[in-house]
Amino acid sequence: MSNKIQIFDTTLRDGEQVPGCQLATEEKITIARELEALGVDVIEAGFPISSPGDFLSVIGISRAVKEPVVCGLTRAKQEDIDVAAEALRYAKRGRIHTGIGSSDVHIKHKFKSNREQVLEQGVWAVQYAKSKGYEVEFYAEDAGRADLAFLAQMIEAVIKAGADVVNIPDTTGYCLPHLYGKRIQYLFDNVSNIDKAIVSVHCHNDLGMATANTIEGLLHGARQAEVTINGIGERAGNTSLEEVAMILKTHQDLGLYTDIKSEKIYGLSKLVSKMMRMPVQPNKAIVGSNAFAHSSGIHQDGFLKHAENYEIINPADVGVNSSSIVLTARSGRAALKHRLEVLGHKIEGQDLDVVYENFLIMADEKKQVNDQDLEVLAVNIPVLAR
Amino acid sequence: MSNKIQIFDTTLRDGEQVPGCQLATEEKITIARELEALGVDVIEAGFPISSPGDFLSVIGISRAVKEPVVCGLTRAKQEDIDVAAEALRYAKRGRIHTGIGSSDVHIKHKFKSNREQVLEQGVWAVQYAKSKGYEVEFYAEDAGRADLAFLAQMIEAVIKAGADVVNIPDTTGYCLPHLYGKRIQYLFDNVSNIDKAIVSVHCHNDLGMATANTIEGLLHGARQAEVTINGIGERAGNTSLEEVAMILKTHQDLGLYTDIKSEKIYGLSKLVSKMMRMPVQPNKAIVGSNAFAHSSGIHQDGFLKHAENYEIINPADVGVNSSSIVLTARSGRAALKHRLEVLGHKIEGQDLDVVYENFLIMADEKKQVNDQDLEVLAVNIPVLAR
Repeated sequence: MSNKIQIFDTTLRDGEQVPGCQLATEEKITIARELEALGVDVIEAGFPISSPGDFLSVIGISRAVKEPVVCGLTRAKQEDIDVAAEALRYAKRGRIHTGIGSSDVHIKHKFKSNREQVLEQGVWAVQYAKSKGYEVEFYAEDAGRADLAFLAQMIEAVIKAGADVVNIPDTTGYCLPHLYGKRIQYLFDNVSNIDKAIVSVHCHNDLGMATANTIEGLLHGARQAEVTINGIGERAGNTSLEEVAMILKTHQDLGLYTDIKSEKIYGLSKLVSKMMRMPVQPNKAIVGSNAFAHSSGIHQDGFLKHAENYEIINPADVGVNSSSIVLTARSGRAALKHRLEVLGHKIEGQDLDVVYENFLIMADEKKQVNDQDLEVLAVNIPVLAR
Repeated sequence: MSNKIQIFDTTLRDGEQVPGCQLATEEKITIARELEALGVDVIEAGFPISSPGDFLSVIGISRAVKEPVVCGLTRAKQEDIDVAAEALRYAKRGRIHTGIGSSDVHIKHKFKSNREQVLEQGVWAVQYAKSKGYEVEFYAEDAGRADLAFLAQMIEAVIKAGADVVNIPDTTGYCLPHLYGKRIQYLFDNVSNIDKAIVSVHCHNDLGMATANTIEGLLHGARQAEVTINGIGERAGNTSLEEVAMILKTHQDLGLYTDIKSEKIYGLSKLVSKMMRMPVQPNKAIVGSNAFAHSSGIHQDGFLKHAENYEIINPADVGVNSSSIVLTARSGRAALKHRLEVLGHKIEGQDLDVVYENFLIMADEKKQVNDQDLEVLAVNIPVLAR
């Protein structure tokens, strides 16, 4: 089995369907080109039958990118597949992503159907999509809550029907890592033709587990991860591309890799956040504005002595210029001294004691002490101290 | 072993030391009272020696709350412990949280010391803190990267010295769930007196793994989780209180529980975000503004048929009034029909076809279609359709 993890980006489909995130076709093409530059393997470009705008965007993106596979989403319906096939006609490599519910709750309450019928419809959809001449990926919706024996039966049948990729989504974000990993393992142990397809993991973040579940899935044999920039997506969102890419890069002991050019991550995160009007919180892993900021005294002191004390990722690796030191009431003497030196003030001994005492009073009042404030403190030592 | 998980909230210590998050004492007391109402077991109220403001806040919080243990952070230094003991003097139950580095990178580069010396200093600090008459929790800083045999030796020694709680922090957010779980398991297998103390997990989110690591730790025997509201904290933050509480509530199969009154989560999330000036991104699990919003056609249709199709948490359980349906170009016919009915327009058959077509055009242009827009669409059917 290859150790290359295919990155399937669905920022423009599962991400774009979020309230307020909708993009014009031109904007989608801009992001698709950046995703290509980032090195993603597959771009899910839209859900062609869902709206005229989506149909045109899939056409536009198919024309705009050369390297990545371009994928269009469908339900297991003839009209959906016809329209997706039409939208993908300019793609160098096109993929139809079709599927149907696999959990009993979806089968009964959403499809008003039964296991036999949805399995049959799924198999038919794969065959029909395949007949259009594209790669075919099958999603077993709500696989995170599906009966495992039935899920295995469904996956075996759609691979037999020609599915190139089988997607095991945790649609509701219900799974915990050890449970999701066991599901993927079960499929490898019980689907006789599993080696004929790539297993894909598609996780949602309702319990904050999307990335952890994705990694567990990869550790158990999945070789495609479905992700979005900044983890955007419906409700609590999808797995974050940047987290998966940097986990595999940081933990080379896992023996897995992606083709993501990580130094482009931060720029694309900013672009997507701005275009899609989806703010990234300061404490977001990898791409938050505080992700590489050190403020407490203990941490700043340790960080100044040796960056590796508190930093497991070099900010430059994700395109962030440098770790920033911000001074607050929690900052220690070493951090203050260092920042003053950066500003050209070499202050030591008793003078430093006085500046540090004044600094703490100022920091308790002002919350954040900036360089301008430090200049005032540095210049006023003689007045206060002598 | 008890199945109750102690919730140790460090919003006011590890959260509050974030750039820009600093609070006045009165604000901290307000949040501490809300944490008490939420049902947390321990409130880490500050790092008393770090600034005069922190010292006063620990005193204020100690006076303000009755039920939770109030905890003050220290380094393994006499002056730190003296000041913390002083700050905690009004606490009904006070705890001193002391500790030292346990990884070789911290021991060598931060403490310029060696394993023997830091172990000795850690043991001394526990004994000294214990002599003040408080509960004592020991943190083995950077335990996520420490040599396991040395870590076990250190934990055994500090428990012998009287530590009531031993905290195994993944200070840099380096661990993956399966690795962190193995660390906790190793301690249970190799520390002979591990049953004499509560094992605590304290995780950071640099790779997006904080909550997943925490859950793995609990599954392997830890019985205290160190968390913050909204997952705030240095860099990419700490484990989110709301994620841990709702995972244990949703997955009762794990057999673990907390005393968190979950319906108070959303209100406190809003309060902390506002007071600490730390925005919560819309796609944040549990507390993001989109966490319970359904917008795509497939999802809305399924959700309207049966909420359980797409929702694993009842929004009311975390204090959110109701799942919101937002209409966009990705919304389906069923969602449109439902929303129109809510607004008092029963539209069906051919009329609905026309309204849906007009709706899609409008949604492609406007991104989000609100109730006012729907009124326009509903009222104009005769003009456009007949």
